[in-house]
Amino acid sequence: VNLRPPVDLGLYLILGPDTTLGRPLRDVALAAVAGGATVVQLRQKGGASRAFVEEARALIAVLRPLGVPVIVNDRADVALAAGADGVHVGQDDMSPEDVRRIVGPQLLVGLSVTNVAQARDVDATVVDYVGVGPVFATTSKSDAAPALGIEGTAQVCRALRLPAVAIGGIDRDNAARVLATGVQGIAVISAVCAAEDPELAAALLAAQLPRAGIGRAR
Amino acid sequence: VNLRPPVDLGLYLILGPDTTLGRPLRDVALAAVAGGATVVQLRQKGGASRAFVEEARALIAVLRPLGVPVIVNDRADVALAAGADGVHVGQDDMSPEDVRRIVGPQLLVGLSVTNVAQARDVDATVVDYVGVGPVFATTSKSDAAPALGIEGTAQVCRALRLPAVAIGGIDRDNAARVLATGVQGIAVISAVCAAEDPELAAALLAAQLPRAGIGRAR
Repeated sequence: VNLRPPVDLGLYLILGPDTTLGRPLRDVALAAVAGGATVVQLRQKGGASRAFVEEARALIAVLRPLGVPVIVNDRADVALAAGADGVHVGQDDMSPEDVRRIVGPQLLVGLSVTNVAQARDVDATVVDYVGVGPVFATTSKSDAAPALGIEGTAQVCRALRLPAVAIGGIDRDNAARVLATGVQGIAVISAVCAAEDPELAAALLAAQLPRAGIGRAR
Repeated sequence: VNLRPPVDLGLYLILGPDTTLGRPLRDVALAAVAGGATVVQLRQKGGASRAFVEEARALIAVLRPLGVPVIVNDRADVALAAGADGVHVGQDDMSPEDVRRIVGPQLLVGLSVTNVAQARDVDATVVDYVGVGPVFATTSKSDAAPALGIEGTAQVCRALRLPAVAIGGIDRDNAARVLATGVQGIAVISAVCAAEDPELAAALLAAQLPRAGIGRAR
Protein backbone atom coordinates (compact mmCIF):
# COMPACT_ATOMS: atom_id res chain seq x y z
CA VAL A 1 0.00 0.00 0.00
CA ASN A 2 1.41 3.38 -1.03
CA LEU A 3 0.83 5.88 1.77
CA ARG A 4 2.95 8.62 0.23
CA PRO A 5 1.44 11.78 -1.18
CA PRO A 6 2.47 12.41 -4.79
CA VAL A 7 5.58 14.59 -4.98
CA ASP A 8 5.88 17.52 -7.36
CA LEU A 9 9.30 17.02 -8.93
CA GLY A 10 9.05 20.18 -11.04
CA LEU A 11 11.99 22.10 -9.60
CA TYR A 12 13.98 19.86 -7.25
CA LEU A 13 16.56 21.78 -5.25
CA ILE A 14 19.55 19.92 -3.81
CA LEU A 15 21.67 21.71 -1.25
CA GLY A 16 24.25 21.06 1.42
CA PRO A 17 27.24 22.55 3.19
CA ASP A 18 29.69 23.94 0.59
CA THR A 19 26.96 24.53 -2.02
CA THR A 20 25.55 27.87 -0.87
CA LEU A 21 28.64 30.10 -0.86
CA GLY A 22 28.55 30.15 2.93
CA ARG A 23 24.97 31.37 3.14
CA PRO A 24 22.69 29.55 5.64
CA LEU A 25 21.00 26.60 3.92
CA ARG A 26 17.64 27.68 5.29
CA ASP A 27 17.90 31.10 3.68
CA VAL A 28 18.85 29.68 0.29
CA ALA A 29 16.13 27.04 0.49
CA LEU A 30 13.47 29.60 1.38
CA ALA A 31 14.57 31.88 -1.45
CA ALA A 32 14.49 28.98 -3.91
CA VAL A 33 11.02 27.99 -2.76
CA ALA A 34 9.84 31.57 -3.10
CA GLY A 35 11.12 31.35 -6.68
CA GLY A 36 9.29 28.10 -7.33
CA ALA A 37 11.32 25.15 -6.04
CA THR A 38 8.86 22.32 -5.32
CA VAL A 39 11.03 19.92 -3.28
CA VAL A 40 14.31 20.25 -1.36
CA GLN A 41 16.96 17.59 -0.84
CA LEU A 42 19.61 17.95 1.87
CA ARG A 43 22.88 16.30 0.94
CA GLN A 44 25.86 16.02 3.31
CA LYS A 45 28.69 13.65 2.55
CA GLY A 46 30.96 13.18 5.54
CA GLY A 47 30.81 15.47 8.54
CA ALA A 48 29.10 14.96 11.86
CA SER A 49 25.76 13.13 11.92
CA ARG A 50 24.41 15.32 14.71
CA ALA A 51 24.89 18.47 12.64
CA PHE A 52 23.23 16.73 9.67
CA VAL A 53 20.15 15.96 11.79
CA GLU A 54 20.04 19.52 13.09
CA GLU A 55 20.30 20.98 9.60
CA ALA A 56 17.53 18.70 8.39
CA ARG A 57 15.30 19.72 11.29
CA ALA A 58 15.96 23.39 10.59
CA LEU A 59 14.96 22.98 6.94
CA ILE A 60 11.85 20.98 7.80
CA ALA A 61 10.78 23.60 10.34
CA VAL A 62 10.60 26.29 7.66
CA LEU A 63 9.57 24.21 4.62
CA ARG A 64 6.85 21.98 6.04
CA PRO A 65 4.53 24.94 6.72
CA LEU A 66 4.98 25.82 3.03
CA GLY A 67 4.05 22.32 1.91
CA VAL A 68 7.49 21.67 0.44
CA PRO A 69 8.84 18.17 1.10
CA VAL A 70 12.36 17.75 2.49
CA ILE A 71 14.30 14.71 1.29
CA VAL A 72 17.52 13.52 2.99
CA ASN A 73 20.31 12.16 0.83
CA ASP A 74 21.68 8.71 1.67
CA ARG A 75 21.00 8.69 5.41
CA ALA A 76 17.73 6.93 6.27
CA ASP A 77 18.54 7.37 9.96
CA VAL A 78 18.89 11.12 9.61
CA ALA A 79 15.61 11.26 7.69
CA LEU A 80 13.84 9.33 10.45
CA ALA A 81 15.41 11.31 13.30
CA ALA A 82 14.61 14.66 11.71
CA GLY A 83 11.15 13.66 10.54
CA ALA A 84 11.92 14.27 6.85
CA ASP A 85 9.55 13.42 4.02
CA GLY A 86 11.86 11.01 2.28
CA VAL A 87 15.27 9.54 1.53
CA HIS A 88 17.19 9.68 -1.74
CA VAL A 89 19.83 7.06 -2.48
CA GLY A 90 22.36 6.49 -5.22
CA GLN A 91 23.61 3.20 -6.59
CA ASP A 92 26.38 3.02 -3.95
CA ASP A 93 24.15 4.02 -1.06
CA MET A 94 21.96 1.67 0.91
CA SER A 95 19.67 -0.26 -1.46
CA PRO A 96 16.15 1.17 -1.92
CA GLU A 97 14.77 -2.11 -0.59
CA ASP A 98 16.76 -1.73 2.65
CA VAL A 99 15.72 1.91 2.92
CA ARG A 100 12.06 1.03 2.46
CA ARG A 101 12.23 -1.63 5.15
CA ILE A 102 13.76 0.88 7.54
CA VAL A 103 11.59 3.93 6.86
CA GLY A 104 8.26 2.18 6.37
CA PRO A 105 5.51 3.00 3.89
CA GLN A 106 5.08 6.70 4.67
CA LEU A 107 8.38 8.19 3.48
CA LEU A 108 9.32 8.87 -0.12
CA VAL A 109 12.22 6.84 -1.50
CA GLY A 110 14.10 8.22 -4.49
CA LEU A 111 16.84 6.45 -6.44
CA SER A 112 19.48 7.79 -8.80
CA VAL A 113 20.09 5.94 -12.06
CA THR A 114 22.82 6.73 -14.54
CA ASN A 115 21.98 4.40 -17.44
CA VAL A 116 19.24 2.31 -19.05
CA ALA A 117 20.27 -0.94 -17.33
CA GLN A 118 19.88 0.66 -13.90
CA ALA A 119 16.56 2.16 -14.98
CA ARG A 120 15.24 -1.29 -15.92
CA ASP A 121 16.29 -2.63 -12.50
CA VAL A 122 14.22 -0.13 -10.51
CA ASP A 123 11.51 -1.79 -8.42
CA ALA A 124 8.51 0.49 -8.84
CA THR A 125 6.84 -1.07 -5.79
CA VAL A 126 9.69 0.24 -3.60
CA VAL A 127 10.87 3.44 -5.25
CA ASP A 128 8.70 6.55 -5.62
CA TYR A 129 10.70 8.57 -8.14
CA VAL A 130 13.97 8.35 -10.00
CA GLY A 131 16.79 10.82 -10.49
CA VAL A 132 18.23 10.52 -14.00
CA GLY A 133 21.66 11.82 -14.82
CA PRO A 134 24.05 13.34 -15.11
CA VAL A 135 22.45 14.90 -18.15
CA PHE A 136 25.47 17.13 -18.66
CA ALA A 137 28.92 17.12 -17.14
CA THR A 138 28.79 18.62 -13.65
CA THR A 139 31.21 19.89 -11.08
CA SER A 140 28.78 19.46 -8.16
CA LYS A 141 29.45 15.72 -7.81
CA SER A 142 33.03 14.50 -8.08
CA ASP A 143 32.19 10.82 -8.60
CA ALA A 144 29.52 11.31 -11.22
CA ALA A 145 28.93 8.81 -14.04
CA PRO A 146 29.45 9.82 -17.71
CA ALA A 147 27.01 12.44 -18.98
CA LEU A 148 23.91 10.98 -20.66
CA GLY A 149 23.16 13.91 -22.91
CA ILE A 150 19.64 14.80 -23.98
CA GLU A 151 19.04 11.67 -26.04
CA GLY A 152 20.51 9.39 -23.36
CA THR A 153 18.28 10.99 -20.75
CA ALA A 154 15.23 10.37 -22.96
CA GLN A 155 16.28 6.73 -23.38
CA VAL A 156 16.56 6.25 -19.63
CA CYS A 157 13.15 7.88 -19.10
CA ARG A 158 11.57 5.50 -21.60
CA ALA A 159 12.95 2.56 -19.61
CA LEU A 160 11.28 3.82 -16.42
CA ARG A 161 7.74 3.32 -15.14
CA LEU A 162 8.15 6.00 -12.48
CA PRO A 163 8.28 9.80 -12.33
CA ALA A 164 11.76 11.06 -13.12
CA VAL A 165 13.73 14.17 -12.35
CA ALA A 166 16.74 15.03 -14.49
CA ILE A 167 19.98 16.12 -12.84
CA GLY A 168 23.43 17.28 -13.78
CA GLY A 169 24.54 20.56 -15.27
CA ILE A 170 21.00 21.84 -15.84
CA ASP A 171 20.64 25.61 -16.13
CA ARG A 172 18.36 28.26 -17.53
CA ASP A 173 19.71 27.82 -21.04
CA ASN A 174 19.35 24.05 -21.40
CA ALA A 175 16.33 23.46 -19.12
CA ALA A 176 13.77 23.49 -21.95
CA ARG A 177 15.61 20.79 -23.88
CA VAL A 178 15.94 18.67 -20.70
CA LEU A 179 12.24 19.06 -19.93
CA ALA A 180 11.44 17.64 -23.37
CA THR A 181 13.06 14.27 -22.54
CA GLY A 182 10.08 12.91 -20.64
CA VAL A 183 11.10 13.90 -17.12
CA GLN A 184 8.64 15.37 -14.62
CA GLY A 185 11.13 17.92 -13.37
CA ILE A 186 14.67 19.20 -13.15
CA ALA A 187 17.07 19.00 -10.23
CA VAL A 188 19.60 21.72 -9.63
CA ILE A 189 22.36 22.44 -7.20
CA SER A 190 24.73 25.18 -8.27
CA ALA A 191 22.32 26.81 -10.76
CA VAL A 192 20.35 27.99 -7.73
CA CYS A 193 22.51 27.48 -4.63
CA ALA A 194 25.49 29.31 -6.09
CA ALA A 195 23.44 32.01 -7.79
CA GLU A 196 23.77 35.55 -6.54
CA ASP A 197 19.97 35.65 -6.28
CA PRO A 198 18.67 32.11 -5.63
CA GLU A 199 15.05 33.24 -5.79
CA LEU A 200 15.50 34.78 -9.22
CA ALA A 201 17.50 31.77 -10.43
CA ALA A 202 14.77 29.42 -9.25
CA ALA A 203 12.04 31.59 -10.78
CA LEU A 204 13.73 31.59 -14.19
CA LEU A 205 13.89 27.79 -14.10
CA ALA A 206 10.39 27.31 -12.67
CA ALA A 207 8.95 29.56 -15.36
CA GLN A 208 9.95 26.96 -17.95
CA LEU A 209 7.94 24.15 -16.35
CA PRO A 210 4.43 25.17 -17.53
CA ARG A 211 5.80 25.77 -21.03
CA ALA A 212 7.05 22.15 -20.95
CA GLY A 213 3.56 21.00 -20.02
CA ILE A 214 4.58 20.33 -16.41
CA GLY A 215 1.95 21.68 -14.07
CA ARG A 216 2.76 22.98 -10.65
CA ALA A 217 0.71 21.30 -7.97
CA ARG A 218 1.03 24.22 -5.58
CA VAL B 1 11.16 -1.65 29.27
CA ASN B 2 14.66 -2.90 28.53
CA LEU B 3 14.48 -5.74 26.01
CA ARG B 4 18.23 -5.93 25.45
CA PRO B 5 20.29 -8.84 26.67
CA PRO B 6 23.21 -7.76 28.88
CA VAL B 7 26.36 -7.26 26.81
CA ASP B 8 29.73 -8.60 27.90
CA LEU B 9 32.04 -5.61 27.43
CA GLY B 10 35.15 -7.53 28.53
CA LEU B 11 37.16 -7.29 25.31
CA TYR B 12 35.46 -4.94 22.87
CA LEU B 13 36.97 -5.07 19.41
CA ILE B 14 36.52 -2.11 17.06
CA LEU B 15 37.41 -2.60 13.44
CA GLY B 16 36.90 -1.06 10.05
CA PRO B 17 38.47 -0.53 6.67
CA ASP B 18 42.08 0.67 7.08
CA THR B 19 42.47 -0.93 10.52
CA THR B 20 43.30 -4.52 9.57
CA LEU B 21 46.39 -4.09 7.37
CA GLY B 22 44.32 -5.08 4.34
CA ARG B 23 43.12 -8.35 5.84
CA PRO B 24 39.39 -9.14 5.49
CA LEU B 25 37.50 -7.74 8.48
CA ARG B 26 35.71 -11.04 8.94
CA ASP B 27 38.98 -12.94 9.29
CA VAL B 28 40.38 -10.51 11.83
CA ALA B 29 37.11 -10.47 13.79
CA LEU B 30 36.93 -14.26 13.90
CA ALA B 31 40.54 -14.50 15.05
CA ALA B 32 39.94 -11.90 17.76
CA VAL B 33 36.83 -13.75 18.94
CA ALA B 34 38.77 -17.01 19.01
CA GLY B 35 41.23 -15.18 21.25
CA GLY B 36 38.50 -13.90 23.55
CA ALA B 37 36.89 -10.75 22.10
CA THR B 38 33.36 -10.51 23.50
CA VAL B 39 31.79 -7.87 21.25
CA VAL B 40 32.68 -6.39 17.86
CA GLN B 41 32.03 -2.87 16.62
CA LEU B 42 32.17 -2.01 12.92
CA ARG B 43 33.31 1.55 12.27
CA GLN B 44 33.38 3.14 8.83
CA LYS B 45 33.71 6.89 8.45
CA GLY B 46 32.97 8.02 4.92
CA GLY B 47 32.79 5.59 2.03
CA ALA B 48 29.74 4.03 0.40
CA SER B 49 26.78 3.14 2.60
CA ARG B 50 26.00 0.02 0.57
CA ALA B 51 29.45 -1.43 1.24
CA PHE B 52 29.04 -0.59 4.94
CA VAL B 53 25.77 -2.56 5.09
CA GLU B 54 27.34 -5.49 3.26
CA GLU B 55 30.36 -5.54 5.59
CA ALA B 56 28.07 -5.45 8.61
CA ARG B 57 26.00 -8.32 7.23
CA ALA B 58 29.14 -10.36 6.59
CA LEU B 59 30.32 -9.84 10.17
CA ILE B 60 26.92 -10.67 11.64
CA ALA B 61 26.72 -13.84 9.54
CA VAL B 62 29.85 -15.25 11.17
CA LEU B 63 29.59 -13.73 14.66
CA ARG B 64 25.93 -14.27 15.53
CA PRO B 65 26.30 -18.08 15.54
CA LEU B 66 29.11 -17.55 18.06
CA GLY B 67 26.92 -15.38 20.29
CA VAL B 68 29.09 -12.31 19.77
CA PRO B 69 27.11 -9.07 19.33
CA VAL B 70 27.92 -6.78 16.40
CA ILE B 71 27.57 -3.04 17.02
CA VAL B 72 27.55 -0.50 14.19
CA ASN B 73 29.28 2.83 14.74
CA ASP B 74 27.26 6.02 14.13
CA ARG B 75 24.88 4.67 11.48
CA ALA B 76 21.56 3.59 12.97
CA ASP B 77 20.26 2.94 9.45
CA VAL B 78 23.11 0.58 8.66
CA ALA B 79 22.53 -1.23 11.96
CA LEU B 80 18.83 -1.65 11.14
CA ALA B 81 19.41 -2.70 7.54
CA ALA B 82 22.07 -5.25 8.45
CA GLY B 83 20.25 -6.55 11.51
CA ALA B 84 23.03 -5.61 13.92
CA ASP B 85 22.78 -5.90 17.70
CA GLY B 86 23.35 -2.26 18.41
CA VAL B 87 24.55 1.22 17.52
CA HIS B 88 27.41 3.15 19.08
CA VAL B 89 27.47 6.94 18.87
CA GLY B 90 29.90 9.66 19.84
CA GLN B 91 29.13 13.16 21.03
CA ASP B 92 29.04 14.49 17.44
CA ASP B 93 26.95 11.62 16.09
CA MET B 94 23.20 11.41 16.25
CA SER B 95 22.01 11.82 19.84
CA PRO B 96 21.37 8.59 21.80
CA GLU B 97 17.77 9.71 22.24
CA ASP B 98 17.31 10.00 18.46
CA VAL B 99 19.02 6.65 17.94
CA ARG B 100 16.78 4.97 20.51
CA ARG B 101 13.65 6.35 18.87
CA ILE B 102 14.80 5.00 15.51
CA VAL B 103 16.06 1.56 16.52
CA GLY B 104 13.45 0.72 19.11
CA PRO B 105 13.87 -1.09 22.44
CA GLN B 106 15.67 -4.20 21.17
CA LEU B 107 19.01 -2.81 20.00
CA LEU B 108 21.89 -1.82 22.22
CA VAL B 109 22.82 1.86 22.25
CA GLY B 110 26.34 2.81 23.30
CA LEU B 111 27.65 6.33 23.82
CA SER B 112 31.20 7.68 23.98
CA VAL B 113 32.05 10.18 26.69
CA THR B 114 35.34 11.99 27.05
CA ASN B 115 34.93 13.78 30.39
CA VAL B 116 32.99 13.85 33.66
CA ALA B 117 30.45 16.44 32.48
CA GLN B 118 29.45 14.24 29.54
CA ALA B 119 29.30 11.23 31.86
CA ARG B 120 26.84 13.03 34.15
CA ASP B 121 24.66 13.88 31.15
CA VAL B 122 24.15 10.27 30.08
CA ASP B 123 20.52 9.17 30.24
CA ALA B 124 20.68 5.66 31.67
CA THR B 125 17.14 4.96 30.48
CA VAL B 126 18.28 5.40 26.87
CA VAL B 127 21.91 4.27 26.80
CA ASP B 128 23.03 0.70 27.55
CA TYR B 129 26.75 1.17 28.01
CA VAL B 130 29.33 3.92 27.79
CA GLY B 131 32.70 4.13 26.07
CA VAL B 132 35.16 6.13 28.19
CA GLY B 133 38.26 7.64 26.70
CA PRO B 134 40.64 8.21 25.27
CA VAL B 135 42.51 6.75 28.24
CA PHE B 136 45.82 7.27 26.49
CA ALA B 137 46.78 9.20 23.37
CA THR B 138 45.82 7.21 20.29
CA THR B 139 46.52 7.31 16.59
CA SER B 140 43.38 5.35 15.66
CA LYS B 141 41.09 8.37 15.91
CA SER B 142 42.29 11.64 14.47
CA ASP B 143 39.69 13.85 16.18
CA ALA B 144 40.04 12.34 19.65
CA ALA B 145 39.63 14.41 22.83
CA PRO B 146 42.55 14.89 25.26
CA ALA B 147 43.71 11.72 27.00
CA LEU B 148 42.04 11.10 30.39
CA GLY B 149 44.80 9.04 31.91
CA ILE B 150 44.13 6.34 34.48
CA GLU B 151 42.86 8.68 37.20
CA GLY B 152 40.69 10.64 34.78
CA THR B 153 39.16 7.41 33.51
CA ALA B 154 38.37 6.37 37.08
CA GLN B 155 36.73 9.74 37.73
CA VAL B 156 34.52 9.40 34.66
CA CYS B 157 33.55 5.87 35.71
CA ARG B 158 32.49 7.09 39.13
CA ALA B 159 30.19 9.65 37.47
CA LEU B 160 28.43 6.90 35.50
CA ARG B 161 25.57 4.62 36.51
CA LEU B 162 26.11 2.35 33.50
CA PRO B 163 28.60 -0.30 32.44
CA ALA B 164 31.67 1.27 30.86
CA VAL B 165 34.33 0.16 28.45
CA ALA B 166 37.63 2.03 28.35
CA ILE B 167 39.14 3.00 25.00
CA GLY B 168 42.23 4.70 23.63
CA GLY B 169 45.77 3.40 23.44
CA ILE B 170 45.08 0.29 25.52
CA ASP B 171 47.52 -2.56 25.04
CA ARG B 172 48.85 -5.64 26.79
CA ASP B 173 51.17 -3.61 28.99
CA ASN B 174 48.69 -1.07 30.37
CA ALA B 175 45.48 -3.18 30.32
CA ALA B 176 45.70 -4.22 33.98
CA ARG B 177 45.92 -0.62 35.16
CA VAL B 178 42.99 0.37 32.93
CA LEU B 179 40.90 -2.52 34.23
CA ALA B 180 41.41 -1.23 37.77
CA THR B 181 39.58 2.05 37.02
CA GLY B 182 36.10 0.59 37.42
CA VAL B 183 35.37 -0.26 33.78
CA GLN B 184 33.72 -3.53 32.78
CA GLY B 185 36.00 -3.99 29.81
CA ILE B 186 38.57 -2.62 27.42
CA ALA B 187 38.10 -1.58 23.80
CA VAL B 188 40.90 -2.01 21.31
CA ILE B 189 41.49 -1.26 17.67
CA SER B 190 45.10 -1.40 16.61
CA ALA B 191 46.29 -3.56 19.52
CA VAL B 192 44.37 -6.42 17.89
CA CYS B 193 43.50 -5.35 14.33
CA ALA B 194 47.05 -4.35 13.46
CA ALA B 195 48.69 -7.26 15.31
CA GLU B 196 50.52 -9.86 13.28
CA ASP B 197 48.46 -12.51 15.11
CA PRO B 198 45.11 -10.96 16.14
CA GLU B 199 44.05 -14.13 17.96
CA LEU B 200 47.15 -14.13 20.12
CA ALA B 201 46.89 -10.38 20.72
CA ALA B 202 43.24 -10.77 21.81
CA ALA B 203 44.09 -13.76 24.01
CA LEU B 204 46.82 -11.85 25.83
CA LEU B 205 44.35 -9.06 26.58
CA ALA B 206 41.42 -11.34 27.44
CA ALA B 207 43.62 -13.27 29.86
CA GLN B 208 43.84 -10.15 32.02
CA LEU B 209 40.07 -9.85 32.48
CA PRO B 210 39.58 -12.60 35.09
CA ARG B 211 42.57 -11.31 37.05
CA ALA B 212 40.79 -7.93 37.15
CA GLY B 213 37.70 -9.63 38.54
CA ILE B 214 35.82 -9.32 35.24
CA GLY B 215 34.11 -12.59 34.45
CA ARG B 216 33.56 -13.77 30.94
CA ALA B 217 29.92 -14.58 30.27
CA ARG B 218 30.72 -16.98 27.47
